[in-house]
Amino acid sequence: MASGKPASGEDSLIARYFRPIATDPGAFRLDDDAAALKPNGDDIVVTTDAIVEGVHFLPDDPPDTVARKALRVNLSDLAAKGATPAGYVLTLALRSADEAWLQPFAAALGEDAAQFSCPLLGGDTVSTPGPLMISVTAFGRVPPGKMVHRSGAKPGERVMVTGTIGDAALGLAILGGGKVHAAATDMAAREALVGRYRVPQPRVRMTEIVRDYASAAMDVSDGLAGDLTKLCGVSGVSAVIDMASIPLSHAARDLVSRGVVGLETLIAGGDDYEILCTLPEDRVEAFAAAAQRAGVAVSSIGAVVAGDLGPRFIDGQGREIMLERLSYSHF
Amino acid sequence: MASGKPASGEDSLIARYFRPIATDPGAFRLDDDAAALKPNGDDIVVTTDAIVEGVHFLPDDPPDTVARKALRVNLSDLAAKGATPAGYVLTLALRSADEAWLQPFAAALGEDAAQFSCPLLGGDTVSTPGPLMISVTAFGRVPPGKMVHRSGAKPGERVMVTGTIGDAALGLAILGGGKVHAAATDMAAREALVGRYRVPQPRVRMTEIVRDYASAAMDVSDGLAGDLTKLCGVSGVSAVIDMASIPLSHAARDLVSRGVVGLETLIAGGDDYEILCTLPEDRVEAFAAAAQRAGVAVSSIGAVVAGDLGPRFIDGQGREIMLERLSYSHF
Repeated sequence: MASGKPASGEDSLIARYFRPIATDPGAFRLDDDAAALKPNGDDIVVTTDAIVEGVHFLPDDPPDTVARKALRVNLSDLAAKGATPAGYVLTLALRSADEAWLQPFAAALGEDAAQFSCPLLGGDTVSTPGPLMISVTAFGRVPPGKMVHRSGAKPGERVMVTGTIGDAALGLAILGGGKVHAAATDMAAREALVGRYRVPQPRVRMTEIVRDYASAAMDVSDGLAGDLTKLCGVSGVSAVIDMASIPLSHAARDLVSRGVVGLETLIAGGDDYEILCTLPEDRVEAFAAAAQRAGVAVSSIGAVVAGDLGPRFIDGQGREIMLERLSYSHF
Repeated sequence: MASGKPASGEDSLIARYFRPIATDPGAFRLDDDAAALKPNGDDIVVTTDAIVEGVHFLPDDPPDTVARKALRVNLSDLAAKGATPAGYVLTLALRSADEAWLQPFAAALGEDAAQFSCPLLGGDTVSTPGPLMISVTAFGRVPPGKMVHRSGAKPGERVMVTGTIGDAALGLAILGGGKVHAAATDMAAREALVGRYRVPQPRVRMTEIVRDYASAAMDVSDGLAGDLTKLCGVSGVSAVIDMASIPLSHAARDLVSRGVVGLETLIAGGDDYEILCTLPEDRVEAFAAAAQRAGVAVSSIGAVVAGDLGPRFIDGQGREIMLERLSYSHF
């Protein structure tokens, strides 16, 4: 992003909507071709995630929720890597410079950047004849060598997850109409589930705790079952998951108990943005206490075991559940 | 980017095409949610530029040239900031996982990453129903505080530019048919101009020279006239440009001399990816000598002057040329 004078359309758009929120000195008021990050001895952790209209968000989603989702899916990755937010750059592909959309979009980005101490450093705005697309590359800091990987899980460790699973998938199902929409008659519950889909709550308060305790971690973005399968694959281990221990919200539990959706659907649904991690049995108690102090619920959902097959999911009666679908995939 | 097993469509796509070129240790084989950059005491310079099918490249452009352009427009920014390439992340929005497109695309990216010592560190692959879009965020290193800005130009300094201006705009005009296509009958010249449009030559050899000599610099991507206007605006100065000194290729000079296009069109055209910079008069000789040693031609095209109006463009007869259009703008 860059702007001078006289302002072209793109430049005036940047000056009007994005310069006011680019207050970090390293952003150079978006007046330059690049930003500067001062590492101050840390490693810089880099993550990038894009969201596309009609794929990751709905054409009707309010612009402020689209902005928050674009940034937060990246903050979720940083938290799972134990990295403290340091800033982000934004690529915005727009059909037109629509003020009614851009104003709330930029304002929400600015609020989230302040809330999560992750300033806008730069970006690029391009026109597209196609769907809106927002690509964010976010930066975090870790002490040298301390990024938490997917690859450190060891047999005998516990599998832990933050928060609750499946709410966002239910929120998306509600927005799509159909049987979940018809069954979710409680308006407060419906709104809460839709909120989980539209505006993820990245577990940034877990950043240091993940760094201090987790042997392996990732965020749950494409479905718990599929993401755990990936973590196990990279770690060269397997896992046994107790389905009854998977944390559900009241709203989700109600829909499962009434037979509206199966638990296996929820653990293959996307957009949870919780943290999945593994740690030694004897550190679980201290980890849970630290998470509680940070205001984040954590649940122990199973055990890491030796093996190179995918994780096994066991129901309350001790039967293995075969999952038809592990997660969302784009192709 | 991340992959485990069993591979989903997106994961197998990443494993097949992008893992082989992600050889930097900080990329963690694209097996993780994030990459790690080790700054080693440098500042990290961050730039991001996206290219969209039908906007920045043509639907018929070969996939290998699209890949090179996506990376090189970012390398051009790094060079103009005096930053040595350190790596990049890639967001790829695709309609489908088409092997005939992806294979040459990834191979060309890998070649360019090796040629320019700028390794692939990570990315995200998403599906889109719309045009292809490739967004790259590239990282460079500078000694602390040594990023070269747009804002340092001072009255009395010279305005310098590398290479030749307008070739890419002519290449695009040739691809579009019309009068430039009809007039450019020399096949070698035609191919050279189209090549400048499709595959920019980022001036990475100028990186340290820009850092050592330039008071202000930027790359010329949206048109020399508009980009100089931006540099002057941010620096709080104006400039007087001698149109006859603007460097043209033989092919461009031929088309101008035959009246096929005007010079004012060439300096408002985009995609040059040359470096525009300013420096004190008494350093021009040493700068030019250093550039020559690096194999890059540089031209002195005018003077920085006091003032807050846009730069003035003077023709060979001393008359000021009024430009109708300064540069390309998306909106």
